[in-house]
Amino acid sequence: MIVTVVGIGLIGGSMALDLKKRGFADQVIGVDKNEENKKIALQNNLVDKILDLETAVSQSDIIVLAIPVGSMVTLLPNILDLITEKQMVTEVGSTKEIVLKSIDNHPKRGRFLSSHPMAGTEFSGPTAAVYNLFEDKCNVFIDEKYSDADVITTFHKLFNVLGMNNVNYNSEEHDLHTAYVSHISHISSFALALTVLAKEKKHNRIFELASGGFGSTVRLAKSSPDMWIPIFEQNRDNVLDVLDEHINQLAQFRSLLIKKDFKTFYSLIEESNQIKKILK
Amino acid sequence: MIVTVVGIGLIGGSMALDLKKRGFADQVIGVDKNEENKKIALQNNLVDKILDLETAVSQSDIIVLAIPVGSMVTLLPNILDLITEKQMVTEVGSTKEIVLKSIDNHPKRGRFLSSHPMAGTEFSGPTAAVYNLFEDKCNVFIDEKYSDADVITTFHKLFNVLGMNNVNYNSEEHDLHTAYVSHISHISSFALALTVLAKEKKHNRIFELASGGFGSTVRLAKSSPDMWIPIFEQNRDNVLDVLDEHINQLAQFRSLLIKKDFKTFYSLIEESNQIKKILK
Repeated sequence: MIVTVVGIGLIGGSMALDLKKRGFADQVIGVDKNEENKKIALQNNLVDKILDLETAVSQSDIIVLAIPVGSMVTLLPNILDLITEKQMVTEVGSTKEIVLKSIDNHPKRGRFLSSHPMAGTEFSGPTAAVYNLFEDKCNVFIDEKYSDADVITTFHKLFNVLGMNNVNYNSEEHDLHTAYVSHISHISSFALALTVLAKEKKHNRIFELASGGFGSTVRLAKSSPDMWIPIFEQNRDNVLDVLDEHINQLAQFRSLLIKKDFKTFYSLIEESNQIKKILK
Repeated sequence: MIVTVVGIGLIGGSMALDLKKRGFADQVIGVDKNEENKKIALQNNLVDKILDLETAVSQSDIIVLAIPVGSMVTLLPNILDLITEKQMVTEVGSTKEIVLKSIDNHPKRGRFLSSHPMAGTEFSGPTAAVYNLFEDKCNVFIDEKYSDADVITTFHKLFNVLGMNNVNYNSEEHDLHTAYVSHISHISSFALALTVLAKEKKHNRIFELASGGFGSTVRLAKSSPDMWIPIFEQNRDNVLDVLDEHINQLAQFRSLLIKKDFKTFYSLIEESNQIKKILK
């Protein structure tokens, strides 16, 4: 199997590493707009070779798009134009409704299956690519029913090879639930970093005290705006909805502190502890 | 050296383990109000024996208080009443101004040095105690100038043995900076858990999507209200101050989403990325 990865960053690069190592891909071809990324991808053996998009697509069985969701909307239909009826395409972006609308009526829609491997770190680019990133994590397939049977089978196998458990959402569900669980975590973390940077002018104090929990809460604030701004653009309404709820929860804590109502505050912490049962 | 640890939870238990293993303590005596904790502390070899408070203190060179800060205010003066001029006491609580005021004019104030080892996990109780919890982390001494020279030397050595780097704050600085860096992270995490629990009624969705970053951001929401409510009570004003700033930062994101001003949003994410430089 020859796999082309378009966008050799954290996700694309890590997929390339494991698909080769775990024997799913005989060859991995890399495509990237950025010259530096191409150099690193070859130096770090993320891919076997670098080609331009059209040549790479013409030589591949499977094409994986791992680029920011703003570019996905224009690139995805172009890729479907390029492939034959035997080739298969997936994209691994973080928003789905707008991206999938761009190929709604495409004659080769069946050769495509959208996926969202729920894995990552706060780092980005090809230097962030690592083995085993996806192991034991969850991959979401979106609107699977529009894909051909052999496409479904192949991509289920691909993500299983990466060590992932596959589930199915429709695109509306996907964008809603990722806003609720993933996107709000990033907004919260970006805001927490700004809060601490605004209040704590003595940066060595941040460094000294960070192991009291701040480090993990603010980890996502290291994430790239190039990846996240298009996500917030495409999923704005769902993000606004959950952000409102989050501000309300914080305002409730604020009000309880002002009123010194620590009894209610205690119950709310106990309620938030319920997250233990869900996340183990 | 014989060390008594009062409160054999995550911090007290982990200190007991390492002080014994690393040869600082010849014997570690445990004191705890909770019968179940005492049993676990002995079963898991956290301590060599369990005694009642007065007997333990009378047999010890050093007494470490690792109990919630609400109880610290009353227990600390009692312990200073009990000790001789040769014994030494530290407490490792998360707030300092109110606790230290309780022994301001105590005749044995010099035998005491307040410390705050900045280490922990979201878990609590003796089952959460682990080796090497403090390695390469920062310990804050508070108002060191009020302690006797031999007390300062001994506790510097104790925390160095645990692998920690020692720094000095005064109590006012301590409570301000821990509110800015540590306490707000916990409030943020409790609120995020409540947000997601309120919006996301399908709990299996949370489980499936949590590895997209939510897991680490919400980790602290597993923390115990018994530990955190007294901290928020004692450090209320500083926490309110930084919480206001945090709500304002989130409200700014909200406003930018409403106005679709993604250019300013991009700059703010870039600004929050500065945290990378501080935390490495």
